[in-house]
Amino acid sequence: MLFKRYLSEGLAHYSYLVGDQGRAAVIDPRRDIDQYLQDAEMDGCQVDLVLETHRNEDYLVGSCELEAATGADIFHADGQWAYGYGTAVRDGQVWQVGRLKIRAIHTPGHTPGSMSYLLHDPEGAPWMLFTGDTLFSGDAGRVDLLGEDRLEEMAGLLYESIFNQILPLGEGIILCPAHGSGSVCGGEIAERTWTTIGLEKQLNRLLQVGSKTEFIERHARMLERPPYFRNMERLNLAGPDVLHSLPILTPLKPGVFADAAATAQIVDTRDQTSFGAAHLAGSLSIWKSILPNFAGWFLDDGTPILLVCNDQDREPLVRMLVRMGFDNLAGYLHGGVLGWALAGKNLAAIATPDPVGFFELMSAEQQPFILDVRGEDEIKGGGLQHGKRIHLTELLDHLDEIPKNRKVATLCTSGYRSMLAASLLERAGWQDLAVPVGGLGAWHANQFGLEL
Amino acid sequence: MLFKRYLSEGLAHYSYLVGDQGRAAVIDPRRDIDQYLQDAEMDGCQVDLVLETHRNEDYLVGSCELEAATGADIFHADGQWAYGYGTAVRDGQVWQVGRLKIRAIHTPGHTPGSMSYLLHDPEGAPWMLFTGDTLFSGDAGRVDLLGEDRLEEMAGLLYESIFNQILPLGEGIILCPAHGSGSVCGGEIAERTWTTIGLEKQLNRLLQVGSKTEFIERHARMLERPPYFRNMERLNLAGPDVLHSLPILTPLKPGVFADAAATAQIVDTRDQTSFGAAHLAGSLSIWKSILPNFAGWFLDDGTPILLVCNDQDREPLVRMLVRMGFDNLAGYLHGGVLGWALAGKNLAAIATPDPVGFFELMSAEQQPFILDVRGEDEIKGGGLQHGKRIHLTELLDHLDEIPKNRKVATLCTSGYRSMLAASLLERAGWQDLAVPVGGLGAWHANQFGLEL
Amino acid sequence: MLFKRYLSEGLAHYSYLVGDQGRAAVIDPRRDIDQYLQDAEMDGCQVDLVLETHRNEDYLVGSCELEAATGADIFHADGQWAYGYGTAVRDGQVWQVGRLKIRAIHTPGHTPGSMSYLLHDPEGAPWMLFTGDTLFSGDAGRVDLLGEDRLEEMAGLLYESIFNQILPLGEGIILCPAHGSGSVCGGEIAERTWTTIGLEKQLNRLLQVGSKTEFIERHARMLERPPYFRNMERLNLAGPDVLHSLPILTPLKPGVFADAAATAQIVDTRDQTSFGAAHLAGSLSIWKSILPNFAGWFLDDGTPILLVCNDQDREPLVRMLVRMGFDNLAGYLHGGVLGWALAGKNLAAIATPDPVGFFELMSAEQQPFILDVRGEDEIKGGGLQHGKRIHLTELLDHLDEIPKNRKVATLCTSGYRSMLAASLLERAGWQDLAVPVGGLGAWHANQFGLEL
Amino acid sequence: MLFKRYLSEGLAHYSYLVGDQGRAAVIDPRRDIDQYLQDAEMDGCQVDLVLETHRNEDYLVGSCELEAATGADIFHADGQWAYGYGTAVRDGQVWQVGRLKIRAIHTPGHTPGSMSYLLHDPEGAPWMLFTGDTLFSGDAGRVDLLGEDRLEEMAGLLYESIFNQILPLGEGIILCPAHGSGSVCGGEIAERTWTTIGLEKQLNRLLQVGSKTEFIERHARMLERPPYFRNMERLNLAGPDVLHSLPILTPLKPGVFADAAATAQIVDTRDQTSFGAAHLAGSLSIWKSILPNFAGWFLDDGTPILLVCNDQDREPLVRMLVRMGFDNLAGYLHGGVLGWALAGKNLAAIATPDPVGFFELMSAEQQPFILDVRGEDEIKGGGLQHGKRIHLTELLDHLDEIPKNRKVATLCTSGYRSMLAASLLERAGWQDLAVPVGGLGAWHANQFGLEL
Repeated sequence: MLFKRYLSEGLAHYSYLVGDQGRAAVIDPRRDIDQYLQDAEMDGCQVDLVLETHRNEDYLVGSCELEAATGADIFHADGQWAYGYGTAVRDGQVWQVGRLKIRAIHTPGHTPGSMSYLLHDPEGAPWMLFTGDTLFSGDAGRVDLLGEDRLEEMAGLLYESIFNQILPLGEGIILCPAHGSGSVCGGEIAERTWTTIGLEKQLNRLLQVGSKTEFIERHARMLERPPYFRNMERLNLAGPDVLHSLPILTPLKPGVFADAAATAQIVDTRDQTSFGAAHLAGSLSIWKSILPNFAGWFLDDGTPILLVCNDQDREPLVRMLVRMGFDNLAGYLHGGVLGWALAGKNLAAIATPDPVGFFELMSAEQQPFILDVRGEDEIKGGGLQHGKRIHLTELLDHLDEIPKNRKVATLCTSGYRSMLAASLLERAGWQDLAVPVGGLGAWHANQFGLEL
Repeated sequence: MLFKRYLSEGLAHYSYLVGDQGRAAVIDPRRDIDQYLQDAEMDGCQVDLVLETHRNEDYLVGSCELEAATGADIFHADGQWAYGYGTAVRDGQVWQVGRLKIRAIHTPGHTPGSMSYLLHDPEGAPWMLFTGDTLFSGDAGRVDLLGEDRLEEMAGLLYESIFNQILPLGEGIILCPAHGSGSVCGGEIAERTWTTIGLEKQLNRLLQVGSKTEFIERHARMLERPPYFRNMERLNLAGPDVLHSLPILTPLKPGVFADAAATAQIVDTRDQTSFGAAHLAGSLSIWKSILPNFAGWFLDDGTPILLVCNDQDREPLVRMLVRMGFDNLAGYLHGGVLGWALAGKNLAAIATPDPVGFFELMSAEQQPFILDVRGEDEIKGGGLQHGKRIHLTELLDHLDEIPKNRKVATLCTSGYRSMLAASLLERAGWQDLAVPVGGLGAWHANQFGLEL
Repeated sequence: MLFKRYLSEGLAHYSYLVGDQGRAAVIDPRRDIDQYLQDAEMDGCQVDLVLETHRNEDYLVGSCELEAATGADIFHADGQWAYGYGTAVRDGQVWQVGRLKIRAIHTPGHTPGSMSYLLHDPEGAPWMLFTGDTLFSGDAGRVDLLGEDRLEEMAGLLYESIFNQILPLGEGIILCPAHGSGSVCGGEIAERTWTTIGLEKQLNRLLQVGSKTEFIERHARMLERPPYFRNMERLNLAGPDVLHSLPILTPLKPGVFADAAATAQIVDTRDQTSFGAAHLAGSLSIWKSILPNFAGWFLDDGTPILLVCNDQDREPLVRMLVRMGFDNLAGYLHGGVLGWALAGKNLAAIATPDPVGFFELMSAEQQPFILDVRGEDEIKGGGLQHGKRIHLTELLDHLDEIPKNRKVATLCTSGYRSMLAASLLERAGWQDLAVPVGGLGAWHANQFGLEL
Repeated sequence: MLFKRYLSEGLAHYSYLVGDQGRAAVIDPRRDIDQYLQDAEMDGCQVDLVLETHRNEDYLVGSCELEAATGADIFHADGQWAYGYGTAVRDGQVWQVGRLKIRAIHTPGHTPGSMSYLLHDPEGAPWMLFTGDTLFSGDAGRVDLLGEDRLEEMAGLLYESIFNQILPLGEGIILCPAHGSGSVCGGEIAERTWTTIGLEKQLNRLLQVGSKTEFIERHARMLERPPYFRNMERLNLAGPDVLHSLPILTPLKPGVFADAAATAQIVDTRDQTSFGAAHLAGSLSIWKSILPNFAGWFLDDGTPILLVCNDQDREPLVRMLVRMGFDNLAGYLHGGVLGWALAGKNLAAIATPDPVGFFELMSAEQQPFILDVRGEDEIKGGGLQHGKRIHLTELLDHLDEIPKNRKVATLCTSGYRSMLAASLLERAGWQDLAVPVGGLGAWHANQFGLEL
């Protein structure tokens, strides 16, 4: 028997491979399917079944990719919508993968047609539940995707799904959700990487409610929604383009890169201090580890993407980007920023003062304008005294609130989002920018006795 | 946070790596520790803690190996015995691995000092329990290791440990035992590769008892005990030799191999038909997949081991053997049996009739003597009508019950153990041997209308 | 700078990757191009140039595959023929790959339009010569592909190419041919895996001739030509189908496999004794290591192929087969022959006596009919006294010369080709077959004093 | 037959594995021997022979490591010195590795007892020559190791070795030296990664001489000699410590790291701009790719080494360092410089102006003091007009020539060595430092019309 979980980092997306006696199924596959195929092959299984828990909005599903590779049958949830591929799941539908039985359970709430899949063990007993975005470790799926009008309705459905369909399966059942800690699909997913119905009943904040009404009250809220969600939703219905294999980035020499840049967006995935010290003017700083979180906010899927990155990061970056539907990869800067300089081209810089340096800036007569790009839930009412807070994801809509003739220091918890913010400002024409290394985290670790 | 489970195939042994914020712990490490080190290093952690759940008897523990590599602190259970290394765990002792807390719980029964370790999640809630050989998926640890005299006492202790210490932790707790299906440490371990207290309460046969007395009645029984157990017990107390790195098998040309064979034991790990068709006279047929199950019965750890095997199997075989303390690896036959033949040396053969061929043998006037080497629990009272049943592990003590002047056909479920039996007979002087391909499994798949 | 040689085992085919400053070229790529792409990517290069030395006849060239993956430009030799892709090379044409210069040199003989490519080192000096099938280590390309009529003409062209174009480049030049020892494209290629013009001038038997006439005399001869050559020639002109990624074999359970077998050809790639002991009736025994040598003789590219093989061999076998254009891969027997037996299906066997056993057979009153399947060049006039020699590749045309009512023992040097011969006979209805383990090699290693 | 070359990057050291029929030899092994062992094992060979071409001075030889792992026999050259291990080679000594013959040829010059090893091909013809540090691609070994007194003597010996022993072997012989381009053992080694006697006769500058006198004139010169050479020489005679396996770096949290730093040397291997933007005060900037070139100059092998590096670089860095005898590895900064900042610790910075920024600096009234750290051979008489040139390797002896009360800009070709220089200055108390990104390379790529 084969059971394997796959974590797509950044997206914090989990997919699952289960197999027995030559057959295998993947639940909610990602688009780069090579690892599923290889593991199934090693185990003597063929992936001939794909189950989707819901129409995903945060990544492109790899179902069609698997179908192209192995002829697998695809079953998708949310059959109320018109899919361009596969077959709609029926509530109660059962599949057999070797000795393993899988049964579909309709668990609406995140989407109207969300399905959970109950896996039985080789001896036939209920064992694991693939919950998709219905129930996570420490959190539950967002219910705002159909809009504010249907918020309470969906939260109510989710309550019913969790309390009437899932919890009664028994505390010992192992939960296999589609996301772990860090996902945009659930803001408070716990770091408890494996969980059970029993643990959630006890530890999940949302399951401590006394009534459906209380659940709705707590959970029915609109969350941020990266603009690429629309695109994912559309493509996941139509069926994403089949890649057949992972794209390979083209190395572009400085001259070629510069030409291509005229009609492209440049993404620099190096860390904050590297970017600060020297980068291509106009490039966006999106550190590789937060790329899956912010590509969907700041990259345009119709415009070619050029990358500036460390050598070892190329392959992981390509995976991240195609998982989110950014297939328009035009190449990377061969030789990096040093090669750029050696080709006689100029570099831009953004100051990265350390806490002491920032303290000096703040102690000077003419203080920098402080731009706090954290989200509301991070500050919990206790924002900074100075400057202005504009959530990073809303920054481009509020540029007019930021002075251009004054040094602007951007701040977040660790410095990465603030460097992204600074790069957005630089691209929009700001010139005197500073991003304190380590952001507010580093600041607070020092005790300067100065309130920001 | 890092959590990883390692399966040592054949032994069906599970070990675990947990890490957080630069620190890591291994629970019940195996002797080839390279994978722990590599995974911890990749995650930026150092293994500085080793926890043993009990003095193991079926494999050599890798604690000293880890201590030599990283200076890790070792805590062993069964502190009532005199260890040559490490520190005895105290009931209730607590360790911190980054944000993760681990607490020792005394759960005697399998051994007097068996410990379970309760891992708390990053937020501090009880999460997983490393149960060692106390509680498995579908089974519980054997209680016969201290002898028949203390059988009921130990079973009683085990009952108390499970019912009073473990089950009250809550149904949602994830169980992480030291063995999975296929281990000699629990005959009926389920194939449910991940399990929870809730699932075990519901599905584990032994937990369905009404009372301690009933538990003792069902579970207090003497099981088979491979001779190498004594050695493992002794070495696991003294502290196994430190290997530093995995040994590399020496290729031996036929002439050198033949010389070495004079004072060595030859193990042929190829499959049943390959061995049957051509093998070195006197070699034992132990198919690679059953080597961990039978090396401990039929190999002598004081005598050099020579291997005849497929090329790709060398490394996995070395791992299997050193895990069981068979460090005396003298080399492998370079060029295999074909090279042996090309060097002008003779090969032996054992007939491997297919079911139809075996049917013909059985339909002949002079039938072969049938030797059924299955265990009692496999036949459940319904043995064969003809021939004799001698459990494989007892074969060498009952050779005088097997006729030498007649064809002997050995039988088991699939043919592998019967080929091992046949090779033992061949080595002991039998000459006319047959091992039906696929054993009784293949026989019963045909419907010859002939009762064996 | 990047220089890497790739050996396709069995075919003994060499291809080459050279790269510099972001660009890379592949010379004579094989069809599974993943390794080129990965190595180029690791080195920061993109394969944007493919050079073919000639229209290959023994494998499918991967040029179109590379073009599909990276948009590489393809240049093919033999521009006198009408290609379905790429551009014809001109004699003297020059490419620049970073600082590396490559120059085409017309070296006809093997084919009319064969090209060699002279690679200059980063400082501009002539360095290495990619000779394709023109000049090998210890041998030269075959000149019989255009038929017997043009044999001497082509041999004469080859002489001119080698003596007038290649040798004058200087003894220090490193030669990079398209084949190494074991290829069907040159029967006497030396095991000297790296060579130079100087070494060949001194050691290559064919270069020791005193005149063009002598060269033609020695070299102008018709060689065996596997039937699949035609197909390769045709497809290499048209442009082979693009695979995009390596196919994955489908696991087929015995029942499904049996059904599929009705319209397929079964290839068993296990070793001779495994096959002998138990195999599926009607399957061909082609040991994995000789598959590239004999697939082209005995497999039909229009008929689906079913495989019986060891687990670890699946991926390498797929590579071998698609390299030779056998894309019609219908799957493999899940569970192998043991699974077949356990499903109640019958197995066939072919006796594999060891030398002593064969000696006994030969000493019996009724000796077996001996079939020697070696080639003429192997026996050099000194064939066996008994039985008959029919070269393996001609066996199917001479079946009527082999008795059916008598035991037939097939012989070759090591036993592999004779097992293939025996499997061909079995499929054609022969029933009493024997393949002495280790063939004549093992026989001669013993000194029985019996002339075969 | 097995032939494989291994490049140790940075050291530009080549070692070689040759094997046949179960036996294998390594020529001039490096200390991390895992790759040799793995490749030999895959090929069914055991490394039982180690040949050293000379007592190495630039890295620790892995001979004793191999002896410990496989019991290999070690033969070392320079038998005139007293070795603590192995056996001295005799001129003309012959070994057989399967069918391969290896013959020792005394080729003094680099050291008095330097040996070359002539490998014969499987058919017995001379094939490849392992020349150690005697003859390289485009260069010859340095002759200054025994001091200025013996410079001409050694150069004369080297001439005799090359012209009388090596060149007569024939132009076609393939040369396998111990170093490639980039090594400190030969300043002008060509990028022609494979070479032959013929190519060297034609292209090697040193072989174009008309007489021994001319050769001595050209080649007898004292070269730079990193201080660690003494240590390598001493240890390579005594026999380096056996590691058994590659050390694993310990992750150290900021607090622990800071404590350890009190008695350690900190090496930061990140690139120039990352270091410039934020680094630990007092740490040395040695970019990973130049670490093998400068560790021997600036690290003390008696003092613990602490690393600040990117995650993916840890393993390669450990290999580099132990190859050079820096075994005293105390750990790495867990969480990197960002973690350091988040722990409330301060960071230092060194300005990294891009060319335009540097142009502005140079156009200002108060220009920075320019420190050119290139070597004499790089400037060939044409140094900068301003500031001062002190070769990086001599910097610490000339600190008093650099002003402390003025901005100092360090310069080299690409910026890496100048950042190392700047970090040395910073550690010595300089405070106002700048390292133009891309150094003189980037400067000259712009055409500012300003002479530096």
